[in-house]
Amino acid sequence: MIVIGELINGMYKDVARAVANREADIIQHLALEQVKDGASMLDVNMGPYSKDPARDMRWLVETIQAVVEVPLSLDSTKADVIEEGLKITKKRAVINSTSADPERMDIIFGLAKRYNAQVIGLTMDKSGVPNSKASRLELAQTIVAKAIEYGINTEDLYLDPLLLPLNVAQPQAVEVLESIHEFRLLCNPAPQVIFGLSNLTQGIKSRSLINRTFLTMAIANGLTAVILDPLDKKLMDALITAELLLNKNIYCDSFLDAYRKK
Amino acid sequence: MIVIGELINGMYKDVARAVANREADIIQHLALEQVKDGASMLDVNMGPYSKDPARDMRWLVETIQAVVEVPLSLDSTKADVIEEGLKITKKRAVINSTSADPERMDIIFGLAKRYNAQVIGLTMDKSGVPNSKASRLELAQTIVAKAIEYGINTEDLYLDPLLLPLNVAQPQAVEVLESIHEFRLLCNPAPQVIFGLSNLTQGIKSRSLINRTFLTMAIANGLTAVILDPLDKKLMDALITAELLLNKNIYCDSFLDAYRKK
Repeated sequence: MIVIGELINGMYKDVARAVANREADIIQHLALEQVKDGASMLDVNMGPYSKDPARDMRWLVETIQAVVEVPLSLDSTKADVIEEGLKITKKRAVINSTSADPERMDIIFGLAKRYNAQVIGLTMDKSGVPNSKASRLELAQTIVAKAIEYGINTEDLYLDPLLLPLNVAQPQAVEVLESIHEFRLLCNPAPQVIFGLSNLTQGIKSRSLINRTFLTMAIANGLTAVILDPLDKKLMDALITAELLLNKNIYCDSFLDAYRKK
Repeated sequence: MIVIGELINGMYKDVARAVANREADIIQHLALEQVKDGASMLDVNMGPYSKDPARDMRWLVETIQAVVEVPLSLDSTKADVIEEGLKITKKRAVINSTSADPERMDIIFGLAKRYNAQVIGLTMDKSGVPNSKASRLELAQTIVAKAIEYGINTEDLYLDPLLLPLNVAQPQAVEVLESIHEFRLLCNPAPQVIFGLSNLTQGIKSRSLINRTFLTMAIANGLTAVILDPLDKKLMDALITAELLLNKNIYCDSFLDAYRKK
């Protein structure tokens, strides 16, 4: 399971302030904590308050890379901001993200090709987020076709069926679960399937319980990557246990510790 | 989800003693607690220490039915003991269980027909518990065919792919998960799919975590019934949440309480 830590995001006020004031220790602490708790990759998003997003991206990537060695997921709606990150990432990066819009895909897959990056493809287009498995699948096919056109190895493509908040779109959770299974069958080699877990429970009570239950169900359906808060210990316990039950790690009494020490 | 409470089992010394001494209050307390915490059915097993299993079965069924109204799962290797229960159950019972052995199936499906009972069919035969999805599926087909021969509605058949302890047969957990999905496709109407969850974690640390994670994954794969300890609150929380995410109940902030009050 590829675990992308979500906490370095300028949407959070602490992070936005740390970026604005160039407080490297705050960002580096978040990077170290997330990796220690199981993140195999870190998302980097300077958020909506940044006055110079390209420059902030550069500073964030450098600041993070000074303390951890994991690959980064460069998270921005602006291609030039992503490119600033791609220029200096030491490990192979993930571009977060493209939609299924042809113009966006041309830009993002072009960047991916140039910088040998992986790509997260969101199954949405200008008409918005789909409300059925069928339309998710159609958009996923569009993204896969474009990736292949650009010579991207489909293993390097992360398809995201897009989770919606449970309290406003409850029936979509099942559609997403079923989409995961279908996405994996779309091409060979199979694409990665990913989602941002916290979207499911925006503004919801019992957040942690619902998040870890859904993550476990999604892993059972073939999810291969996830963006989440790795500091949520119960969530990571559920993820580690689900992988154990899928026979990805060998059982021993201390399987949780063993995974974390890896 | 059909939840069968497992605690009235003479394998537990307290229960064995209560049966031997005819301490109705102990049994009735277990019955009431399990139903209060979410059991929709109760398993009744007099265990290995019973000196007169047929008589003990009668006493147990009467004792339980005096305080709760849920159907019972009559759990014995002996057909005559099961029949003692079938004679006096007020609600439609489940026979727990038959294997795929032809002689056993003839006896059990014969009883089921005579008493209008449901049946749990274990996908095993004289050669033991299978170690692959393929052999589980073959045995399941044998059971379904025999059930149909006896005019049993396939909705009244509970197929059990048989969980094995994780510490001795770890790869079997995945085989069971995949079997669930395949069993549901075996016939129309689809059979129920069930397992005894605690088999997974006999003698294992982190029992509760592993049990609830696996149950969640199994529900995502189509499990429709389960034998478990309904007094394990975290386990029941996971079950209720998984059903919510499958859109079986409407989300509200107090969805856990709402389910339990039903």
